[in-house]
Amino acid sequence: MKINLLLTGNELMAGDTIDSNSSMIANQFAPLGWRLHKKVTVGDDIKLLCEEIDLLSRDTDVLIINGGLGPTVDDLTADALAKVSGNPLEQHPEALEHLQQWAQQRGYQLNKANLKQSFLPKGSAIIPNATGSAVGINLQHQGCIIIATPGVPSELRPMLSQQIIPFLQSRYASGYIKTVRIGVFGLGESTLQEMFDHAFPDWPETIELGFRASFPVLEVKLTARLAGMDEQLESWKNKVKALLAEHVLGEMPCTMAAACLQQLNDKRSNMVTAESCTGGLIASEITRIPGSSSRFLGGIVSYSNSMKAEVLGVSWKALEQEGAVSEVVAQQMLSGALRVSGADVGIAVTGIAGPDGGTEDKPVGTVWLAWGAADNIKTLCLRLPFERPFFQNMVTALGLDLLRRYLLGVDTLPATASRYKVS
Amino acid sequence: MKINLLLTGNELMAGDTIDSNSSMIANQFAPLGWRLHKKVTVGDDIKLLCEEIDLLSRDTDVLIINGGLGPTVDDLTADALAKVSGNPLEQHPEALEHLQQWAQQRGYQLNKANLKQSFLPKGSAIIPNATGSAVGINLQHQGCIIIATPGVPSELRPMLSQQIIPFLQSRYASGYIKTVRIGVFGLGESTLQEMFDHAFPDWPETIELGFRASFPVLEVKLTARLAGMDEQLESWKNKVKALLAEHVLGEMPCTMAAACLQQLNDKRSNMVTAESCTGGLIASEITRIPGSSSRFLGGIVSYSNSMKAEVLGVSWKALEQEGAVSEVVAQQMLSGALRVSGADVGIAVTGIAGPDGGTEDKPVGTVWLAWGAADNIKTLCLRLPFERPFFQNMVTALGLDLLRRYLLGVDTLPATASRYKVS
Repeated sequence: MKINLLLTGNELMAGDTIDSNSSMIANQFAPLGWRLHKKVTVGDDIKLLCEEIDLLSRDTDVLIINGGLGPTVDDLTADALAKVSGNPLEQHPEALEHLQQWAQQRGYQLNKANLKQSFLPKGSAIIPNATGSAVGINLQHQGCIIIATPGVPSELRPMLSQQIIPFLQSRYASGYIKTVRIGVFGLGESTLQEMFDHAFPDWPETIELGFRASFPVLEVKLTARLAGMDEQLESWKNKVKALLAEHVLGEMPCTMAAACLQQLNDKRSNMVTAESCTGGLIASEITRIPGSSSRFLGGIVSYSNSMKAEVLGVSWKALEQEGAVSEVVAQQMLSGALRVSGADVGIAVTGIAGPDGGTEDKPVGTVWLAWGAADNIKTLCLRLPFERPFFQNMVTALGLDLLRRYLLGVDTLPATASRYKVS
Repeated sequence: MKINLLLTGNELMAGDTIDSNSSMIANQFAPLGWRLHKKVTVGDDIKLLCEEIDLLSRDTDVLIINGGLGPTVDDLTADALAKVSGNPLEQHPEALEHLQQWAQQRGYQLNKANLKQSFLPKGSAIIPNATGSAVGINLQHQGCIIIATPGVPSELRPMLSQQIIPFLQSRYASGYIKTVRIGVFGLGESTLQEMFDHAFPDWPETIELGFRASFPVLEVKLTARLAGMDEQLESWKNKVKALLAEHVLGEMPCTMAAACLQQLNDKRSNMVTAESCTGGLIASEITRIPGSSSRFLGGIVSYSNSMKAEVLGVSWKALEQEGAVSEVVAQQMLSGALRVSGADVGIAVTGIAGPDGGTEDKPVGTVWLAWGAADNIKTLCLRLPFERPFFQNMVTALGLDLLRRYLLGVDTLPATASRYKVS
């Protein structure tokens, strides 16, 4: 089955919006062995939309259109479909009924803008939308199945899994594909490539190998496209894991926080955070994960010196003599957090995220990390030459990784930490 | 100037990666009045790449290719350019020199995979890369300027601003375009459309009006494409702001946290957070903003009951009798956080993010918010039927907005809060 994708919206061309929908579609299709062949994005321009619908539906089995089904004047998908297919717009009774129910549930009054959403090209079938006002459109044109979907991700997601995939499965068989993704942190892409070249001169042609940097995780992806490859894939997965050892976070999807939580689960330990320059990001990354409450007791975002002293018990003397960004303050932040929370282990970070606040001694990008248990606190000073948000993301990733390695009982540093270590 | 964009990478087709580069390119081009005409994305497939380079370079002035310049075997852009243009790959002395310098600065040894990056189609000019190993490629083909750029965002960004834009400016004049974007929170898109229809029957044709939902902010965008429109645009901007009143966050880019910080600056107040179900996300959103330290004293992520009691002084009696998700606990979390931090105002949230932890009385999605000053604490209970990450994002947005409205001195609720309020 050949699948093309057409995305529409001025916001996608103007850079206002980052498209995550095509990734969602690809991800939902992947387990069935369905791959996107080509993806085209155009603005809300009726002429260009018509051209692309015509072109993309010619050489493909399925064309999925995303966006342009909303109530406003710049939503042109139904109109373009009507023009290209020669089926004029008419009010669709099921679409109207859907709109009425949608409005009733919310205590809304349907307005004229909303009602536009009930007009579809003649001969279309509707695709129910469980959460939004716009129904999807299913229309055959020159032997191609055209499916128009709403641009709102939370509406697209269930429409894909509950409506579109079952419909396409009833038309097209799914192929065999099996993928293993291993999340890695602490090695660069070209180091990885070299390690593979050396360790696996006999890498089999039947397994595609790919690397993908998805900050902060580097993903190693093994893909088999032939049936009966399960065992071979499993065996190569294990070889890869053995080669990369402590740098392996786990199988994807796996975040830095999830890998750290996994170690906490293995060791039946719980943790706490004390954050200054990351401002709650470490805690937030951990608590994104369902069930984190069993291992994460809490955190203190001690942005002001006063909170460092009053809540965490950092000594005013240390703050005044060494400054807030210093080894002793990082250590005291961690011991304070461990004390007030009763946690077994923790992470503390204090640094200068910038763009202001740097000094000659401690320029922007300087950060002290402390991690470990009350009787075994490790520390490290880095100088990370990155802009504020990336600096915060990097410190968060490193903090979580250092605690993960601590729990794992290894003392190697991830490559980034070695590279930017202040000697 | 007509500009097409070709993105390449299996990760973009497989859904592994969300493309933010095209948005970056569009955003850097926008102030010059340069708009992207069409965007095509294909996988690492040499045949498809060659086809699209050929097609997309035919009807355009500029073709920008993004991705496929890396050291690994699936990086095919230089190869495809060589094939399409008929200029064979040869080692480019400047590219080689760049690679050598890049490696030297990092104490790396160049390997064979890296050296591949020095081979470019004959006749190419290189585009320096300040941060990465891959130089960009500038090549003329059938009257079109083809520019190949690296896929790593941090390498693309400076290459665009420092190399590509100045180069294109020297070739093409920039057009007039002026855009005003107003960030709004608390009104739905179709309510907005109706308000505009009613209030502005005389909306001028010379100003394009667009709405864009960029969760959680709704953006109202006014665009003028004719010279000399500055005054008119300014005047309509002010009319729009007056119409939308307290729902206006500010001019974009503006986050919920930035709008709240702006009010804190106006009132010369500082704040604190006490978070349970959002797990540090509110603090993290605030501290993303440079200079937030002058208004944000810190926060407590009191995930465990013990931290609620020990650090914030929430009474064990309240925790046992009313439960952690209750009005009195939200109030006590806020008063505790105000007390330990000495802040003027704050936000506290306690709720059930799910997927587990719900009860019949307090199902997943229940959240108590408390906000205001020690002598004037407001509370609200909502039941938000969203999945964990979206629930956390929504509670964060609402918490920040409720504090913003409090500081502004208005007592209207944003529409989402009214809709999901537990009566």
